[in-house]
Amino acid sequence: MTQRQLKLGALTMGCGGPGRHNLWLDPQLPADASVNVDWYIDIARQAEAALFDLMFIVDSQFITEGSPSHYLNRLEPLTLLSALAVSTRHIGLVGTLTTSYNSPYNVARRLASLDLISKGRAGWNVVTSGDAGTAGNYSRDEHYDYATRYGRAAEHVQVVQGLWNSYEEDAFVRNRATGQFLDPSKLHSLNHQGEHFSVVGPLNIQRSPQGQPVIFQAGDSEPGRDLGAATADVIFTHAASIEQGQAFYRDIKGRALQRGRDPEQILIMPGAEIYVGDTDAHAREIEQHYHQLDHSFELALKEFGRNFGWHDFSQYDLDAPFPQESLEAARSSFFTAAKRIADHAREKGFTLRQAVEFGRQLRPGAFVGSAVTVAEKMADWLQARAVDGFNIYIGHPGQFDRFTREVIPLLQERGVYRTAYEGSTLRESLGLSIPTCTPGRVQAR
Amino acid sequence: MTQRQLKLGALTMGCGGPGRHNLWLDPQLPADASVNVDWYIDIARQAEAALFDLMFIVDSQFITEGSPSHYLNRLEPLTLLSALAVSTRHIGLVGTLTTSYNSPYNVARRLASLDLISKGRAGWNVVTSGDAGTAGNYSRDEHYDYATRYGRAAEHVQVVQGLWNSYEEDAFVRNRATGQFLDPSKLHSLNHQGEHFSVVGPLNIQRSPQGQPVIFQAGDSEPGRDLGAATADVIFTHAASIEQGQAFYRDIKGRALQRGRDPEQILIMPGAEIYVGDTDAHAREIEQHYHQLDHSFELALKEFGRNFGWHDFSQYDLDAPFPQESLEAARSSFFTAAKRIADHAREKGFTLRQAVEFGRQLRPGAFVGSAVTVAEKMADWLQARAVDGFNIYIGHPGQFDRFTREVIPLLQERGVYRTAYEGSTLRESLGLSIPTCTPGRVQAR
Ligand SMILES: Cc1cc2nc3c(=O)[nH]c(=O)nc-3n(C[C@H](O)[C@H](O)[C@H](O)COP(=O)(O)O)c2cc1C
Ligand SMILES: Cc1cc2nc3c(=O)[nH]c(=O)nc-3n(C[C@H](O)[C@H](O)[C@H](O)COP(=O)(O)O)c2cc1C
Repeated sequence: MTQRQLKLGALTMGCGGPGRHNLWLDPQLPADASVNVDWYIDIARQAEAALFDLMFIVDSQFITEGSPSHYLNRLEPLTLLSALAVSTRHIGLVGTLTTSYNSPYNVARRLASLDLISKGRAGWNVVTSGDAGTAGNYSRDEHYDYATRYGRAAEHVQVVQGLWNSYEEDAFVRNRATGQFLDPSKLHSLNHQGEHFSVVGPLNIQRSPQGQPVIFQAGDSEPGRDLGAATADVIFTHAASIEQGQAFYRDIKGRALQRGRDPEQILIMPGAEIYVGDTDAHAREIEQHYHQLDHSFELALKEFGRNFGWHDFSQYDLDAPFPQESLEAARSSFFTAAKRIADHAREKGFTLRQAVEFGRQLRPGAFVGSAVTVAEKMADWLQARAVDGFNIYIGHPGQFDRFTREVIPLLQERGVYRTAYEGSTLRESLGLSIPTCTPGRVQAR
Repeated sequence: MTQRQLKLGALTMGCGGPGRHNLWLDPQLPADASVNVDWYIDIARQAEAALFDLMFIVDSQFITEGSPSHYLNRLEPLTLLSALAVSTRHIGLVGTLTTSYNSPYNVARRLASLDLISKGRAGWNVVTSGDAGTAGNYSRDEHYDYATRYGRAAEHVQVVQGLWNSYEEDAFVRNRATGQFLDPSKLHSLNHQGEHFSVVGPLNIQRSPQGQPVIFQAGDSEPGRDLGAATADVIFTHAASIEQGQAFYRDIKGRALQRGRDPEQILIMPGAEIYVGDTDAHAREIEQHYHQLDHSFELALKEFGRNFGWHDFSQYDLDAPFPQESLEAARSSFFTAAKRIADHAREKGFTLRQAVEFGRQLRPGAFVGSAVTVAEKMADWLQARAVDGFNIYIGHPGQFDRFTREVIPLLQERGVYRTAYEGSTLRESLGLSIPTCTPGRVQAR
């Protein structure tokens, strides 16, 4: 068997990010990075020069005036990714779109369009919207309950994939000699009638060079994991330790196997933070330095509240026992994460302050050290089958430079990272097979 | 008063277009033009070199295997326009999005994002979806009736504009010395509770250099014209003759005046076809040549049926009286156009064949002649206040070349066309003022 290689994504949030609330203070970063397309293009080109698999764009659609800065002002993922598509040639372009507040026909169309514009490099990160308040922006009083959220999500993805099968690969004949444009026998309606959606089809866009966009999924509950195991090509998650990563990896690959899927065809790519220094000690200093710059407990408390439907934790005494009643507010939000925190806090008798500290462990794993150390650790995670790759949080610009200049060559030397792109599509980079066109995949019930 | 100048848009449909069903047969055009981003980029750059105001992208979301070729396979407007945004610097980017099957929060967001990516060059062509069959792709049995379509449209545009007022212009302080990112007093929720939508807001995207995207509108009924007069900056229409243009122009500017608007701040830009030859006779030969290439009566009959909800007119005797019962099928489609044809056919005692011929008159006006003749005619339409400009159908590539190389300089000589861009935003090109930010424009009822 050939050596498994790390897959790498560049996860960008511009002016900040979880645990990096004041990233915009870094003078190396444009202060308006989150809405500055030129900055995104620079990052994408830098990531492409370093042979990254993909750009990864997260999303949210709910803010209040008190939201942490990185939520306040962001480009919409797919308009952003189209701009990146014509500014790059090889790197994949993965956008987050929620199944809760988009219709499948629109999602299918926009992603199919991005897939053609990028000549086969599009991906869709399927989410169900963690922020309950999003409902209010879409003519609903309340967010869907969990069962409905995931019921919609499963059906939504099926419909979208069904629409992507509207045209067979060679449907467009375009023969100027005979005057035949389309072979109509290779166009198929969907005629889907389901619990949440009814969609006749067909889609008005041809198949892309990679067949269909790649499916990513993020959402950690039982139904979330089932959705991922059933439909996703790649899972986005967070793992604070190699053991945590391994447990998740085994769980997902096992679920995929149970569904008759090849476990090598579903990849696990958690988020990761990187701090590279001249020595391990120097790297820890850098991490410490940035932590002080980026961090304020007030903002950390706010961000902590996100898992609990942006519950306001500033109303409590930080040193009193963790307020279990806050879990109620998390019901239609990031409930899996919130419950993990609340349960752990009860077991350990944590105060609120301790729970916030523990919450940091649900954040991405951090790789801190000299280039050699970071490369070694990343290779260890790969070899231990804790991951198939990482989505690297692009934070302070100097750090991304060091990673690409110093760590990437070491990963290549070890044979755990490519030295050239395998092809021109995202599926080729990720080693994913091209789905065959199976028209009428979603049948009328 | 300074000389009024023509505004020009480039309307692209790739492999075909109304009355140009076989455009893809032209070997000068890539056969896959409608989904070929490189072709669109070439056109946009050519139009920008000719100082065009804007690219204009129409839309449809309903096909069957029998649809004319130019409907079968198209890029989605906003993903396409983002790709053009970073490939050009001055030209405006106008995309068609329907208010019937999109939610206002998504529309506001995607357009605001395009507006930032293009640094102030985005526009929205507001339509209500002429194809009744679109409903089936969006979980509805039937298209909305007319009253609902236009009721939704009016409220939808208000909400979108309200969301675009979420942030005042100087809301983002981004002061690294004081650490202040946002001035929260300059962020405003919408709290809209309406008949069709309820949207809390605020939007998570800052204002653009042109304040807000430019609003275009297309739809010709009484409620359609009222919607345009009330909310649009530019009206897209078709006018077969200068008199038809003048009547429409007077009607719309009058409606705008009645609403207390400055009639100079609402522009009329009908579609136009151009055939340029060495002499007038040569141009007519070219038109004739292309007409024979592009045209088949079978396809013309099909396209004619579009106004009537894609009614199948091939079932009738072409030389029998026009089948008035077909109007029933047009109820939730392009009813205004269909009724005009049917009424006219009854008055004149037309056969179906004659009605189809008459239907061609509802198509864009054609400017046919030597470069001098075309420039003269276009200037005449401007001076007669039949138009403020044209959206030129980009058809056979050789013709667009001739237009930009030969006609544009003549328009400039006559002083009816710019010799340099006025600024960098679409509003500056069109001479539109920047809307002031009036937070809470749409109030809770
Ligand atoms: C690692 C991770 C990343 C996520 N990213 C997003 C995102 O970008 N946008 C979003 O709306 N929801 C995001 N979600 C939310 C999920 O889609 C889901 O709504 C939420 O996690 C609750 O579901 P769960 O209990 O299954 O995790 C993310 C969830 C996880 C676990
Ligand atoms: C000149 C013109 C262009 C139009 N372009 C589009 C379009 O690109 N996409 C679309 O879905 N509807 C389009 N429409 C349809 C209108 O939005 C509307 O649904 C239809 O014309 C029926 O309304 P009306 O009777 O007011 O004209 C267009 C209409 C006109 C008159």
